[in-house]
Amino acid sequence: FSGETSYEGSVKSGKDGGVFLNGATVDPVEGFIRQAMEVILDEAVRKATDVNEKVCEWRSPEQLKELLDLELKDEGESESKILQRCREAIRYSVKTSHPRFFNQLFAGLEPYSTVASFIIESIKTSLYTYEVAPVFTLMENAVLRKMIETIGWEEGGDGIFNPGGSMSNMYAMNLARYRYCPDWKEVGLYSAPRLVVFTSQESHYSISKAAALMGLGTKNVYMGAVPFMVNATAGTTVFGAFDPIEEIASVCEKHNLWLHVDACWGGAALMSKKHKHLLKGIHRVHSVSWNPHKMLMASLQCSAFLVRDKTSLLQRCHSARASYLFQQDKFYDVSYDTGDKSVQCSRKPDAFKLWLMWKALGSRELEQRVDRALAMARYLTQEIKKRDGFQLLMEPEFANMCFWYIPPSLRKLPEGPELWTKLHAVAPVIKERMMKTGSMMIGYQTHGDKPNFFRMVVISPQVSRQDLDFVLEEIHHLGQDL
Amino acid sequence: FSGETSYEGSVKSGKDGGVFLNGATVDPVEGFIRQAMEVILDEAVRKATDVNEKVCEWRSPEQLKELLDLELKDEGESESKILQRCREAIRYSVKTSHPRFFNQLFAGLEPYSTVASFIIESIKTSLYTYEVAPVFTLMENAVLRKMIETIGWEEGGDGIFNPGGSMSNMYAMNLARYRYCPDWKEVGLYSAPRLVVFTSQESHYSISKAAALMGLGTKNVYMGAVPFMVNATAGTTVFGAFDPIEEIASVCEKHNLWLHVDACWGGAALMSKKHKHLLKGIHRVHSVSWNPHKMLMASLQCSAFLVRDKTSLLQRCHSARASYLFQQDKFYDVSYDTGDKSVQCSRKPDAFKLWLMWKALGSRELEQRVDRALAMARYLTQEIKKRDGFQLLMEPEFANMCFWYIPPSLRKLPEGPELWTKLHAVAPVIKERMMKTGSMMIGYQTHGDKPNFFRMVVISPQVSRQDLDFVLEEIHHLGQDL
Repeated sequence: FSGETSYEGSVKSGKDGGVFLNGATVDPVEGFIRQAMEVILDEAVRKATDVNEKVCEWRSPEQLKELLDLELKDEGESESKILQRCREAIRYSVKTSHPRFFNQLFAGLEPYSTVASFIIESIKTSLYTYEVAPVFTLMENAVLRKMIETIGWEEGGDGIFNPGGSMSNMYAMNLARYRYCPDWKEVGLYSAPRLVVFTSQESHYSISKAAALMGLGTKNVYMGAVPFMVNATAGTTVFGAFDPIEEIASVCEKHNLWLHVDACWGGAALMSKKHKHLLKGIHRVHSVSWNPHKMLMASLQCSAFLVRDKTSLLQRCHSARASYLFQQDKFYDVSYDTGDKSVQCSRKPDAFKLWLMWKALGSRELEQRVDRALAMARYLTQEIKKRDGFQLLMEPEFANMCFWYIPPSLRKLPEGPELWTKLHAVAPVIKERMMKTGSMMIGYQTHGDKPNFFRMVVISPQVSRQDLDFVLEEIHHLGQDL
Repeated sequence: FSGETSYEGSVKSGKDGGVFLNGATVDPVEGFIRQAMEVILDEAVRKATDVNEKVCEWRSPEQLKELLDLELKDEGESESKILQRCREAIRYSVKTSHPRFFNQLFAGLEPYSTVASFIIESIKTSLYTYEVAPVFTLMENAVLRKMIETIGWEEGGDGIFNPGGSMSNMYAMNLARYRYCPDWKEVGLYSAPRLVVFTSQESHYSISKAAALMGLGTKNVYMGAVPFMVNATAGTTVFGAFDPIEEIASVCEKHNLWLHVDACWGGAALMSKKHKHLLKGIHRVHSVSWNPHKMLMASLQCSAFLVRDKTSLLQRCHSARASYLFQQDKFYDVSYDTGDKSVQCSRKPDAFKLWLMWKALGSRELEQRVDRALAMARYLTQEIKKRDGFQLLMEPEFANMCFWYIPPSLRKLPEGPELWTKLHAVAPVIKERMMKTGSMMIGYQTHGDKPNFFRMVVISPQVSRQDLDFVLEEIHHLGQDL
């Protein structure tokens, strides 16, 4: 054995330039994963959902950088050190499954969906072809069919799970454009008339982002020359408002316009006999975005795009026919290869996160959860109305409560610029204090010329009335001196 | 208590239309997750990586539908039934971490990255703002900086993790276009000249998909009027070929063209002193896509887009400034809110999957793994050359081996249409047989007018020379009668 080994020699000796070729270099992994699971169960499940623990352990970016030792080095670290790093990562992460996390349109820990995502992570595969993801391909199909049935498209339809609702909304825009003129897929927009999308001021920013990316231009959202699509929102991000789908559908049918409903947030209401009226008319639209990771509490991300078309529009619009994946001489029915419906290549089997929990809970329990969240929202609304210093911006339609907290020092001020200016400064300070205390998390924002207000969202069935009472008391406690 | 309860009454009694409002309705979740973890450890980790188990348990779509009882119903199921469903989902899924899975550009189970994804799934958050993802925001930042350093951009740069390399390539195209003319973000392409993208025939289909979605048109990839971007590929999907970056960079610099390198597959070579010459010149390019979920074996998905620009181009190109997320009066440095750099809204903290394994292994072990995979590929190349009936399409540059297996009955035929036609039918039959046996998985495909050939990819350090020998013997075993 000399310093200089030939390739042949190195292979025969089981080495190649110092690299061993025989046997696995990954040690038995089960033991480490098992230890890490104990950390996860203790820190990220048990403690993270415990109302007596903090929602967050706030550190500024500078402090956190000091604590975490982020730098990646040449040498690795021991397993016990890595387990310690796992504990730290969990410790300083925000506990979105805590009963007092109301900061986003997702919350809570859904055990079945969480288990499904663990399985997805360990099975690691991608949904391009049936051959590498047979189970998840069929499950996606089953979930899409169930969602389409829930929407009320009696003739069926097509669909796909995407990494988030922004993607789903962009898919809608792309399909609407493709249906309007399929040639543009090949030749681009250079010979196209100026195309415009109609949507409301309150619709999600993903509509503008999609218009920019797709070469339509953000200025062509709202008004313009040749409308090719209308976007209606079922559950706006801030106020939880619903566009009147039935009326919009009538106009769109008359003018042969593609009608998309962004029901990412409000789609959950379709599960409830009591609340589905909010989306009345949805059976008439062309496409729907619906994120079960929001009010249905599926693990992040779980976002479906559904289209009523049954002529393979989704495939025709997005296909690139890669020969290394989509061979036509396979020994099984290649219509089960869903990859060419996507603008992605690798795509995660997110549908399983919904499938497993739906199997476990049944439609009835999902309905109960939606009804419960909306009942909680109504309870909170009543409490806000009852309490001094709290003022709703408007009567909520859904699970978003937008309100001001007015500290005692401002309650005597007449409505006008002085009050608005002072009130505008209140929510950011309360937010800072709640995060530094770690007692709860609620979002705040402005809207148009309105001063900063809180937007609180109720989703999780882990939330009790006591938690809601706590929130209002804690806001007062944190802000009464302002 | 009567059938008709008023809202007030129902809240006081803790009920609202039959929905209980007090206490959590999600049962203690730890126990169930713990049981499910045992199933996962046993079925999806231990058995799935055991060379003595099958790679896949093939069932046709029709058979699998029968076995899985996919339908979602009104009533839920018991925990034990759900655990049984988890077992079945794993059983009929393809074991991509099996040592004999060579079908895709990913393979193997990386324990540290798997643990990181379990943590991500249990912590469930999204990377729009620092306040909801402080740890993962900083880790993404640290990983991006390390990747930029590895690429060799000495002045630094910017970047973002995306759901897959197709997205990363689209980001490159969007940034290149935005840099060429920022106005188009607002006004669309209607006043634009015909824009074209230069790329090679062998580049990934995501370039065409992006051109279609972005309103550029697939026909404007390759040739046309006003070039605004060149896409070079470092590691093509089929052959693992590398475009000469240094030479292309010189041309692009001369003509002020954005040069993007799709290094989704070949980027791993940057970790290796021995192999980084394959990407010589990458320090001169504008942007890079690099998927650590491929040869570095991070969990799916882990895909970075990196850009050399330091003038916030990524943010300016994609921003929509949503007021409910990106308030400017926050109490911390809002430059840590990365959400507006993305065309997504929710975005997963995929960087953590790379961060934790990098911490555990160090750059040195990552380098060893790359060296090992490429040494394995060279070993397989030699074996293919040695054996009767095996023929390489070309000398491999990277870890893709493309070859024909010629059954004994065809070996006497002269080169020509008869041989090609018969040979074309061989790979699909061997593929069908290997999947029904479950012994291994390798892809096959055509390319131009070439008859079907196998594309085998070596990635995982769990693979031994014995596994590679087995593959060649098994192909012969399955195809010798054809």
